[in-house]
Amino acid sequence: MAFLKDCWYCAGWSDSVTNQPSEIVICGEELALYRDSRGEVVALGNRCPHRFAPLSKGKVINDLLRCPYHGLEFDCTGMCAANPHGKKIVPSNARVKSYPVLEKHGAVWLWFKDSKDPDPTLLPPYGFIEDPRYAVAKGYFKLKANYQLLNDNLLDLTHSAYIHPTTVGLPAHLAIKVEYKVRTEGNIIRSERFLPEVPPTPQFLDLFKDPVGDIYSYLSWYPPSLMLLDLSVVPEGTPKRSIENPDADALLIPGAHIIVPETEHTTHYFYAVSRTGAIHDERKTEAMKALSYQTFANEDTPMIEECYRLMEGQDFNALNPAIIESDRGGILARRILAKLISEQSHGPSPRGT
Amino acid sequence: MAFLKDCWYCAGWSDSVTNQPSEIVICGEELALYRDSRGEVVALGNRCPHRFAPLSKGKVINDLLRCPYHGLEFDCTGMCAANPHGKKIVPSNARVKSYPVLEKHGAVWLWFKDSKDPDPTLLPPYGFIEDPRYAVAKGYFKLKANYQLLNDNLLDLTHSAYIHPTTVGLPAHLAIKVEYKVRTEGNIIRSERFLPEVPPTPQFLDLFKDPVGDIYSYLSWYPPSLMLLDLSVVPEGTPKRSIENPDADALLIPGAHIIVPETEHTTHYFYAVSRTGAIHDERKTEAMKALSYQTFANEDTPMIEECYRLMEGQDFNALNPAIIESDRGGILARRILAKLISEQSHGPSPRGT
Amino acid sequence: MAFLKDCWYCAGWSDSVTNQPSEIVICGEELALYRDSRGEVVALGNRCPHRFAPLSKGKVINDLLRCPYHGLEFDCTGMCAANPHGKKIVPSNARVKSYPVLEKHGAVWLWFKDSKDPDPTLLPPYGFIEDPRYAVAKGYFKLKANYQLLNDNLLDLTHSAYIHPTTVGLPAHLAIKVEYKVRTEGNIIRSERFLPEVPPTPQFLDLFKDPVGDIYSYLSWYPPSLMLLDLSVVPEGTPKRSIENPDADALLIPGAHIIVPETEHTTHYFYAVSRTGAIHDERKTEAMKALSYQTFANEDTPMIEECYRLMEGQDFNALNPAIIESDRGGILARRILAKLISEQSHGPSPRGT
Repeated sequence: MAFLKDCWYCAGWSDSVTNQPSEIVICGEELALYRDSRGEVVALGNRCPHRFAPLSKGKVINDLLRCPYHGLEFDCTGMCAANPHGKKIVPSNARVKSYPVLEKHGAVWLWFKDSKDPDPTLLPPYGFIEDPRYAVAKGYFKLKANYQLLNDNLLDLTHSAYIHPTTVGLPAHLAIKVEYKVRTEGNIIRSERFLPEVPPTPQFLDLFKDPVGDIYSYLSWYPPSLMLLDLSVVPEGTPKRSIENPDADALLIPGAHIIVPETEHTTHYFYAVSRTGAIHDERKTEAMKALSYQTFANEDTPMIEECYRLMEGQDFNALNPAIIESDRGGILARRILAKLISEQSHGPSPRGT
Repeated sequence: MAFLKDCWYCAGWSDSVTNQPSEIVICGEELALYRDSRGEVVALGNRCPHRFAPLSKGKVINDLLRCPYHGLEFDCTGMCAANPHGKKIVPSNARVKSYPVLEKHGAVWLWFKDSKDPDPTLLPPYGFIEDPRYAVAKGYFKLKANYQLLNDNLLDLTHSAYIHPTTVGLPAHLAIKVEYKVRTEGNIIRSERFLPEVPPTPQFLDLFKDPVGDIYSYLSWYPPSLMLLDLSVVPEGTPKRSIENPDADALLIPGAHIIVPETEHTTHYFYAVSRTGAIHDERKTEAMKALSYQTFANEDTPMIEECYRLMEGQDFNALNPAIIESDRGGILARRILAKLISEQSHGPSPRGT
Repeated sequence: MAFLKDCWYCAGWSDSVTNQPSEIVICGEELALYRDSRGEVVALGNRCPHRFAPLSKGKVINDLLRCPYHGLEFDCTGMCAANPHGKKIVPSNARVKSYPVLEKHGAVWLWFKDSKDPDPTLLPPYGFIEDPRYAVAKGYFKLKANYQLLNDNLLDLTHSAYIHPTTVGLPAHLAIKVEYKVRTEGNIIRSERFLPEVPPTPQFLDLFKDPVGDIYSYLSWYPPSLMLLDLSVVPEGTPKRSIENPDADALLIPGAHIIVPETEHTTHYFYAVSRTGAIHDERKTEAMKALSYQTFANEDTPMIEECYRLMEGQDFNALNPAIIESDRGGILARRILAKLISEQSHGPSPRGT
């Protein structure tokens, strides 16, 4: 299945990209990344067009990326700028793809252009990641599953009581009458759950002062697989707070779930978890980090990988899945994604495809 | 190649199936197994029809199997009996396959129905496994080879002198004039070897009182790959004893060789070895267990796996194998199996296929 | 892609082939090798035609190779010479392929005949390997890459300064005006580089007496992938010496690079390095051995494997590689090889193909 191209893909947290080149695979494309002397991130195709050596194993010399095998040098546009051998002629096909880069919210984003220009407004409002009113922990791991299973996972949090009973879910919540609404805003999906008068889950780290509160669990999904989980607990009967306007009565713990297809069968998972309470308490931050890793890497990942294995390479729809009420978000995401991918490949476009 | 479906496949020794669900793959089908509160074994398709989670990782609650991911519950017929979410509606396609189960001879047997009803008479007479006149040891391991190579292996025991010279074969037996007969009874193959006046092989555990005896090595094969090796040593010139009527003069060591295709390329091997002599001698039983494991897992398995590797995915017949006299049993088994598989798929059948 | 068949492939250094059978895969063909009682090497197809067991796991009995599974015995022509079972009839198709063998230059060479008879003149002049005027070290390892990438690697030594800066290349050499000539003699390629007035690279082991000298780096390539690297340093302004006539003023370090396709995706690398200086100095020989292993196995291999991985199974030409001046040798080799392979399969031939 094709990938969405007119969108941003995260290629790493900012501090992972340095003047020492690194490599990553996104949507099956092999990339080399480095930071030049002005601090700008350069993203190029990783395969040298000469003899296919990995440019990411090379060196940055005068802001050019030098191939480790025979020393051809490439500039930030992907053109070969120097051939050190013989008459030093540079063949016209000595070029690699280059990718527009946006550095924002502490991460490096690449635009996989199909027909449209890079559009910074397509990023979710991940401002909390660099907001000093939040304590933040970032993480990364990789899964052996198609990335759409991560959309399914996060757009249906009813699984929490089953696979996260000691971290982000509570079996007791199963007995609660949950209010659940899903709607779309253009290509964005808003999935809203409201759990009134419940004890906070362990991920609130005992930082909420009352024994029970109202939990708001708002998940926003942006194509193809960027999610913002706006999770908070507020005193009973008080309204949801905006993550832009946290206050001391409520406890806000928004999270960024940045899902990036590595290949059709493997997925990068970048995440940032945060909180408004006791933001300078290092032990709480360590606990927050450990709990999110436990949840995503040790609880969700084995389940998602098993589901993908049992799909045995078959298409989701071809498996005739049983659809229940709580699947609404996931189904909408699959529908929007299929539409956007189809449009980019087949649909009319002012500039062609 | 298709698998035979109108037959029993062993899914485990009885004690391996408990109220804690387990999983096994047979004929490429993923299965979940559990024992309900009445002690009955339930066998269901392992893949939840909702989001494809492995039911075998779930829990048995009130005799229903609960999916570990979102909590749908399935009954012993494979129907979803409960959806805990929202309006609790159960979609009509929320069902998994269920398999008829027979528990007999200390093992769990599943019927992979194609056109016929489960037929308990198709099991070999493995009664010795639970017969108190026998000391028994059971085992299991897995091979990386097509299951038919195990039929070939057991239906031609001339390999024993070559690959089992210190366990179940004796090089000295090569010099013996062996009487060898193969015949069919319907779809059953009887391969009979008679070795007069020979020293017993090490597998008789020094339990036969004379230095030489007459060895009867009778192998019965049942489709698709169930074998009973009725092996015994009797005083010279005395007749073969029936395993139903052992006596103290002879030493009977029948074995069940239960070969189950996991996939086209991998095979489950369940086995039970036994003896009539010194049946309460634990050290002899340990020795019997160790010797059978050495023979099957350490001697046969590497050879069979290497043969299968060298077949490089090609069909047995396409390789134009050289056929010799001792191949008669194996060739008959392949022929019967091909006929039965062809009939189940293409042949006329009262109920259709 | 097809392999060249009318040529010699190295199956091992002579001392690796004994009366204990061994196995090797060449051009995707599984082979069993053994040395008979007269010291002659026998090379047969490894797969027993009876039940596909690996003959290389068998035993040599009276110069016949006995199958480890059921004991069929094969002679040096590949015919089954004995069937120990029943009436001992040998089926006419009980035969394996046999390969003409040449033992020369301390190695075992097999002819993969297509249309022509074995031609010993097609071997490169590797006489130095058994020449007492040279100290020699032999080695072997395996790579995960198509063998033609090894041709490319050795036919373009401009990579030395980049990936071998402390072994066989010197970054300082990059500033040198190198004379570079490539020509063909029939199907042989001669690639000649001359580096005047340079410090010898570390591989000369500090055995050349002057601080700088003239380095001759002559590479001869024989189809499909046999190379002789005739490398030497001579006093400034003196002519190149022949490896048949070394003298004490110059330091000659010829190397044999014997590249053998195991499969399309994996490659055997046999090599012999040597020197004329201090030939009885064991520590120098150890250093020579360590340095060549470091160079070929630890520096070239990871680069070549990465290049092959990044080719992602695509054809070299389909990747539209950028061609530069120093690629001339590699491009010629690919062209000659394609021509020879095409001729053997499709071209007119006196005896047919």
